[in-house]
Amino acid sequence: MKTEILLSREPGSPIATVTLSNPRKLNAISTAMWCSLKETMDELHRDESLRCIVIRGEGKAFAAGGDVEEFLTVRDDFESAKVYHGKWVAGALGAIVACRHPVVAMIEGPCVGGGLEIASCCDLRIAAAGAKFGAPIMKLGFTMAATELVGLVALAGPAVVLEILLEGRLFSAQEAYEKGLVTRVVLDEAVAEESYAAAGRIAKGAPLVARAHKQLVRRLVATVQALSDTETRDNFAFLDSEDYREGLKAFLEKRSPQFKGC
Amino acid sequence: MKTEILLSREPGSPIATVTLSNPRKLNAISTAMWCSLKETMDELHRDESLRCIVIRGEGKAFAAGGDVEEFLTVRDDFESAKVYHGKWVAGALGAIVACRHPVVAMIEGPCVGGGLEIASCCDLRIAAAGAKFGAPIMKLGFTMAATELVGLVALAGPAVVLEILLEGRLFSAQEAYEKGLVTRVVLDEAVAEESYAAAGRIAKGAPLVARAHKQLVRRLVATVQALSDTETRDNFAFLDSEDYREGLKAFLEKRSPQFKGC
Amino acid sequence: MKTEILLSREPGSPIATVTLSNPRKLNAISTAMWCSLKETMDELHRDESLRCIVIRGEGKAFAAGGDVEEFLTVRDDFESAKVYHGKWVAGALGAIVACRHPVVAMIEGPCVGGGLEIASCCDLRIAAAGAKFGAPIMKLGFTMAATELVGLVALAGPAVVLEILLEGRLFSAQEAYEKGLVTRVVLDEAVAEESYAAAGRIAKGAPLVARAHKQLVRRLVATVQALSDTETRDNFAFLDSEDYREGLKAFLEKRSPQFKGC
Repeated sequence: MKTEILLSREPGSPIATVTLSNPRKLNAISTAMWCSLKETMDELHRDESLRCIVIRGEGKAFAAGGDVEEFLTVRDDFESAKVYHGKWVAGALGAIVACRHPVVAMIEGPCVGGGLEIASCCDLRIAAAGAKFGAPIMKLGFTMAATELVGLVALAGPAVVLEILLEGRLFSAQEAYEKGLVTRVVLDEAVAEESYAAAGRIAKGAPLVARAHKQLVRRLVATVQALSDTETRDNFAFLDSEDYREGLKAFLEKRSPQFKGC
Repeated sequence: MKTEILLSREPGSPIATVTLSNPRKLNAISTAMWCSLKETMDELHRDESLRCIVIRGEGKAFAAGGDVEEFLTVRDDFESAKVYHGKWVAGALGAIVACRHPVVAMIEGPCVGGGLEIASCCDLRIAAAGAKFGAPIMKLGFTMAATELVGLVALAGPAVVLEILLEGRLFSAQEAYEKGLVTRVVLDEAVAEESYAAAGRIAKGAPLVARAHKQLVRRLVATVQALSDTETRDNFAFLDSEDYREGLKAFLEKRSPQFKGC
Repeated sequence: MKTEILLSREPGSPIATVTLSNPRKLNAISTAMWCSLKETMDELHRDESLRCIVIRGEGKAFAAGGDVEEFLTVRDDFESAKVYHGKWVAGALGAIVACRHPVVAMIEGPCVGGGLEIASCCDLRIAAAGAKFGAPIMKLGFTMAATELVGLVALAGPAVVLEILLEGRLFSAQEAYEKGLVTRVVLDEAVAEESYAAAGRIAKGAPLVARAHKQLVRRLVATVQALSDTETRDNFAFLDSEDYREGLKAFLEKRSPQFKGC
């Protein structure tokens, strides 16, 4: 099966739907999908007839993370990590934020790792009660890229993000709501209805005002000083660790990893 | 009926009450009221015998927003918007923040638009269960002024503020509490009692300590870089849009607006 | 009885326990304890075999604050306050934050003043349902040091911190959870089990990843400009007030203070 980003829009509708599709892996985001997501958002940005975008996953999942299998080849050293995170992932996340139209994340099932990063860059997050949130990458032996982490910290604050990353638990939708990760929680069977209802409310307002608010609210968040080259290199130091190799290997062999701290 | 700011204080009491009064319009804040609110807060700031201030609305409403009818005359182009928002509104909100005494907002009924802005500048917000919170200005075709938005973002974070502005829903007091917009929620009939109880607790502490804490806590929030002239101009670009004229017209004619995105 | 910091670790365990012990005063933190807490955290920082640290109080209390009795001698003027807060307290809190290992606060009973400051510098906060949170120092006539306040504001936001400091109430664990002060609340009898379960989850992840995340998440919080010398002096202006003398005196005589605002 293909891994792809699907774009659909009912004739005459002011709302477009972007679907993350990698159904064999709970919509884990492959490199091709990160690239296509950026292109899709850029294209929608240019379409002034649009009023709102809904991002969802294929079937009953939002996205279960990055495509870990790929990491062995596409993110194996500092140079490839800089391209993977700095260009592909950051490009896609940045295109969601920079898109002139408001974006609603419709979240069912797992919203994990890269999926959580995508959701955190959307403007609203409507969660099904059965959705699950987290980023248990400490079990895989790698650190989140700062360019992806900064949006999560801005959304939910440092304490919630540290909890997610240090313990590696998955949160229920209710816990995610209590901790500011999602906008609201609805019954599983109502998540599409409520997501498009929210998009519809947005679409009824003055479009220039929605666009101005999307930009202005983010402008009024205090900025974080950019990482130095040394800090960026430190961010990817895990690539040289034995634990990273062990983490990926254990994941692909479906066993528990044995970490050594080196 | 007059639109005015009322000031009262029981003889010998350490607590003053400031009342937003425009009962014909659910206490919508007129230009005269913004100016008078600033003067009143400045006057209370100078009174060292005071220990705490309660801001409330006349009757069963806090404040339903700015006085929209006035916008046709007092906020009609960039120059008048700079005075209206930069001098009158920012003056009143700044005077609440700069006032040496802690300020408690006692909130019943609608706390919307300019009312929500006032509440967000107070130090505590005690809400009646039936109070309603929001800023559905996307239905009126205009953007919130950055000088007013920055306090809301500091209070509740960018995600909650985007939700308020993009969807234009009104929140219940309970939802406002869950999202960090209010300090606590009490039964409708207990809101005055609890607001003055909170003011009383504040008044019993060491006054110099309360004043130092009010100032110091705000000092320890990371600052946002001031808007450039171009950004300020962009903030008021809606003034030249057809949608703004349509939004005001539809509101005053009590019909739904037809926005075109220009 | 001694006031001390106890350090324990089961043979072969990846988790160390640091115990705040001043049982005569609900583990109020004496100067000796602040100094020892810093030394203990520095020592644990250097131990690369460790995976996680649990900080708890002796018996059924976390810590009821600083040791107020001591203030009469060790924090009596600006010079001594600069040493007490700038060196001893800031040294201990900074050592928790700088410690390479994740730190879990296990919180029963009072978590007040200096105790709340310690908890706010930990990475996770597991609270017993009966725990109590606050910093009612307005009843003692003094202002929180900015170096201690900044962590609380980063954790829970300015509105929650102002509420704590202005009203001087104690929060229940549930209210503390709702306001972002604690990570989760469990039954009183389950607080040790859940705290060590959380530490165990952390200990099972890749250690270098936990250390990187602890550092990186804090790096991605926008920084606050350091206080000027004048601002630091203002922070301790209470030392010259009659109300500070009265506050301490009333506390030690177990009576209500009579503040005059000077």
